[in-house]
Amino acid sequence: EVKKLKGIVAATVTPIDHFGKVNFQEIPEFISFLLDKGIHGLFPCGSTGEGILLSTDERKKVAELTVKEASGQVPVVIHTGSIDIHEAIELTVHARNIGADGAALIPPYYYSVDEAAILDYYRSIAQEVKDFPLYIYNIPGNVKNVISPMIVVKLHAEFSNILGIKDSSMDFMNFINFKAALPGDFCVLMGNDAQIYSSVLMGGSGAIAATASAFPEPVVEIYESIKAGDLNAALKAQKIVTEIRTIFRSYPPVASYKKALEFRGIKAGVPRLPLRGMTDEESERMTRELSNLGLL
Amino acid sequence: EVKKLKGIVAATVTPIDHFGKVNFQEIPEFISFLLDKGIHGLFPCGSTGEGILLSTDERKKVAELTVKEASGQVPVVIHTGSIDIHEAIELTVHARNIGADGAALIPPYYYSVDEAAILDYYRSIAQEVKDFPLYIYNIPGNVKNVISPMIVVKLHAEFSNILGIKDSSMDFMNFINFKAALPGDFCVLMGNDAQIYSSVLMGGSGAIAATASAFPEPVVEIYESIKAGDLNAALKAQKIVTEIRTIFRSYPPVASYKKALEFRGIKAGVPRLPLRGMTDEESERMTRELSNLGLL
Amino acid sequence: EVKKLKGIVAATVTPIDHFGKVNFQEIPEFISFLLDKGIHGLFPCGSTGEGILLSTDERKKVAELTVKEASGQVPVVIHTGSIDIHEAIELTVHARNIGADGAALIPPYYYSVDEAAILDYYRSIAQEVKDFPLYIYNIPGNVKNVISPMIVVKLHAEFSNILGIKDSSMDFMNFINFKAALPGDFCVLMGNDAQIYSSVLMGGSGAIAATASAFPEPVVEIYESIKAGDLNAALKAQKIVTEIRTIFRSYPPVASYKKALEFRGIKAGVPRLPLRGMTDEESERMTRELSNLGLL
Amino acid sequence: EVKKLKGIVAATVTPIDHFGKVNFQEIPEFISFLLDKGIHGLFPCGSTGEGILLSTDERKKVAELTVKEASGQVPVVIHTGSIDIHEAIELTVHARNIGADGAALIPPYYYSVDEAAILDYYRSIAQEVKDFPLYIYNIPGNVKNVISPMIVVKLHAEFSNILGIKDSSMDFMNFINFKAALPGDFCVLMGNDAQIYSSVLMGGSGAIAATASAFPEPVVEIYESIKAGDLNAALKAQKIVTEIRTIFRSYPPVASYKKALEFRGIKAGVPRLPLRGMTDEESERMTRELSNLGLL
Repeated sequence: EVKKLKGIVAATVTPIDHFGKVNFQEIPEFISFLLDKGIHGLFPCGSTGEGILLSTDERKKVAELTVKEASGQVPVVIHTGSIDIHEAIELTVHARNIGADGAALIPPYYYSVDEAAILDYYRSIAQEVKDFPLYIYNIPGNVKNVISPMIVVKLHAEFSNILGIKDSSMDFMNFINFKAALPGDFCVLMGNDAQIYSSVLMGGSGAIAATASAFPEPVVEIYESIKAGDLNAALKAQKIVTEIRTIFRSYPPVASYKKALEFRGIKAGVPRLPLRGMTDEESERMTRELSNLGLL
Repeated sequence: EVKKLKGIVAATVTPIDHFGKVNFQEIPEFISFLLDKGIHGLFPCGSTGEGILLSTDERKKVAELTVKEASGQVPVVIHTGSIDIHEAIELTVHARNIGADGAALIPPYYYSVDEAAILDYYRSIAQEVKDFPLYIYNIPGNVKNVISPMIVVKLHAEFSNILGIKDSSMDFMNFINFKAALPGDFCVLMGNDAQIYSSVLMGGSGAIAATASAFPEPVVEIYESIKAGDLNAALKAQKIVTEIRTIFRSYPPVASYKKALEFRGIKAGVPRLPLRGMTDEESERMTRELSNLGLL
Repeated sequence: EVKKLKGIVAATVTPIDHFGKVNFQEIPEFISFLLDKGIHGLFPCGSTGEGILLSTDERKKVAELTVKEASGQVPVVIHTGSIDIHEAIELTVHARNIGADGAALIPPYYYSVDEAAILDYYRSIAQEVKDFPLYIYNIPGNVKNVISPMIVVKLHAEFSNILGIKDSSMDFMNFINFKAALPGDFCVLMGNDAQIYSSVLMGGSGAIAATASAFPEPVVEIYESIKAGDLNAALKAQKIVTEIRTIFRSYPPVASYKKALEFRGIKAGVPRLPLRGMTDEESERMTRELSNLGLL
Repeated sequence: EVKKLKGIVAATVTPIDHFGKVNFQEIPEFISFLLDKGIHGLFPCGSTGEGILLSTDERKKVAELTVKEASGQVPVVIHTGSIDIHEAIELTVHARNIGADGAALIPPYYYSVDEAAILDYYRSIAQEVKDFPLYIYNIPGNVKNVISPMIVVKLHAEFSNILGIKDSSMDFMNFINFKAALPGDFCVLMGNDAQIYSSVLMGGSGAIAATASAFPEPVVEIYESIKAGDLNAALKAQKIVTEIRTIFRSYPPVASYKKALEFRGIKAGVPRLPLRGMTDEESERMTRELSNLGLL
């Protein structure tokens, strides 16, 4: 039976040491930490997971370790998108074969492509794994090419295994438009951690949240409180998450999540080049800011 | 002795067949066609050359064949940029080893990185090939991260082998600002084929031009006429090039150049997925438009 | 006692006949229509009200008629912003003198001004009416200059009569950031009719809504249902309002609201030049679209 | 006979004292200063001239004084655009009646209007002054609404008195596209002072230049040197103008031009509110920067 993403899904980082090597042995502990905190799903190898900076083999191994450690407790959806369509297919088939609960894919990047090319890209992949749940990943800030509601409507009509979208466009109107254009049971996941509360109250399925990689507790609390009918507690948790997000985003990408995980006892290391780690000054400043929020 | 890029450099396409395989055996004929038309330089594996859609081995082989066929008649600069910094270094070292006249590199893409990360990226590469000419490739429309004049000034001060920039920002103010910030002999190359005439008249070194891949004649004429002191002829040629560019850019990326090359007797084929080829309708319309300009 | 804006405030249109004359005698009937439908406040002379297309005298007369007809049943806040700071002051003093419940002002437009100039603009006005409630109106799509949370924080600290903001930036993150930066009782009003539900659930005070000028019922229902604890009904109403908004915004500005009001029995007429009225084709299409929603 | 704009036209500032009053008596001396320096035309009441911050009467008087002092030595084109179409017509008719050589008009601002509304706006004005030269003023950075080449082509076809455009879009591609779309004798004037050299070499008629209000000499030299066939001197002058422009634009709008005019002996005063004057610190810094260029 299909386990759709629902609730708070951690966009997991990939532990990488100072030599640039993936620290695979840290993954079980990291996943175990997230499960302990009550996370509802796992999303490795996405933007936060440095997916496109990893080799095909590394992406597979990260996916395998995550699926293994999750051991069916929560759904795991692997990001398998790539500008190399053959790699995208290979990774998606691999995700299915290792027992993941689905794959999510960014559209082509670097080049500006039109709707026809975006549709063809997803079709090429969807027809290779007809019974495997697929999610579309809208993140125009990184890939430039925009997933319109019409694209998703067409793909969902053609492929019953395309059953969700992660909207990381940062524009709440896009979330609203995706919800309006698609059936109520189509899974629309929020990719902006400041808008989880609002999206769930509009019928969203939950969020794929980078913040939840380092501080899963308040993110999970947003969702749990809404389900329990306590909107005040949910809004309070959302405000904390929004503050954490603002702090994280004021530092170089990925690095801040990894640094924060250090404080949680996880050796997440540093981002891989060409992403840069935090300077000592940045690291100290972020420590102060997170401490002021009572998080450290 | 260093052969700097100067004049009209063709941003060459990579011939790819309908099965997605690089058609290596067509490269010599294609390069020979460009040399016959008087091209002043060659730039394989860039955006027009689908560099980031090729495997490392394919990129090397395209570079080798281009250098071999050019046989020293004109400088060849290989695009070796990659989000994978190790691939970027490997390709740059390879370019030097096969006797290319330089390498050009886009900055990191997908992630939004700051000046410090961009500087580190170029430093990592420049220090591996200290005597090999390097060019920076500013193309924010594709990579999002902007190369500022200050970045180039810093890199040029640190590495004497960083000796030029290709500005494909489409904004003429950037060209003006690069020229103003850098010494007169620093090579600033135009990447917008509609602004070649203007940039050369402002002291630009020339252009890396996609249009020149299919219709080298009028592009070369812009430069030659300026050098011969005939601004009227140069402006007339520029206007034709601008019209060709407008036509090419109204179709999916890369596909239009390859289709036009068919008419020139070069089997350039189609773009690799996820880029799409032209539909029959598009192909017929473009044929009409190019015919109206007297080019077919 | 201060009557702050709360709930659904109609951004009222200004009735204008086909000769471009303001049809003042229609205003009482229009306001009466809105009050009958349970509107919670009135906002004349804003962007929907063609404020900057009216003469100073016309703006005063529209304000007077609106205040008179509202007769204290609901708060009336007049838009008094102008690129001419003396007109802005004159209109704001006038709003106070006629017994309006506050004034709202856009920042300077046309020129790109910095924070210092924006602060000075609001200070010049605020110090002229120290006991009169003022609202700041953030609408960068029209005026280009952005009101940052920091600007509002500073003004609120200096002037206790600056007690609210209308955020028409269309970006929900701005609403979130205004709420986070300002005290809980500072009035933050939504200016994007598709995000009323979400903003009120985040502690927003309500909305200044153009849609409510023509179809107040579902807009009022969003707010009333939330207050009654019926989120399902509120979300359902919001979805209808979002659909109406999408229809309205697919036509030339202001014209669509006025045309729809015709169907409600209000002679709202047409926009003043240089805004244009709807063509017959547009009018027929909009009638069909609104009918399909069951609104006509 | 029609005196079209050609060469370097100063976008003149309007002298305003510290009480916000227009200092009319300074205008003759200011215009005389510009004529002495060899300016080829005058453009009062534009963006640099704070046109939309002046009353109708003030705009008329500034126009009259400028025309009078120019006394036929150079063409004077008055900016008469306004969001109030009746004011736009009144000012345009006035410009004709006082013997100006033409009027230029920005399109509607504040609201986003479509091509049909923009065409109607210009038509309403053009048909009132059928024998009077009109120029269209493209400045999307201030007015948001873009003048496309197609709009100008249509208007020029309908009204033979619409004979030019000032392109202040800052994007050189727009200049290129206007030149390509319109007949060779249609007057296309550059509104970006850094691109005068390039535009004239592409067949542009000249420039309406804010920089020329304070430092007319190097701006005039660009044009004169090109006409004299000395491209080196022209480019050298352009580089100086570009540097001046960069300095001016690093300060609040209009204020920097007025401050610089002080050093030239012209009492230009300060901008009118809501524009702000320069702080002492800014003023000292700009003085240093202009001195470093050898201009003071």
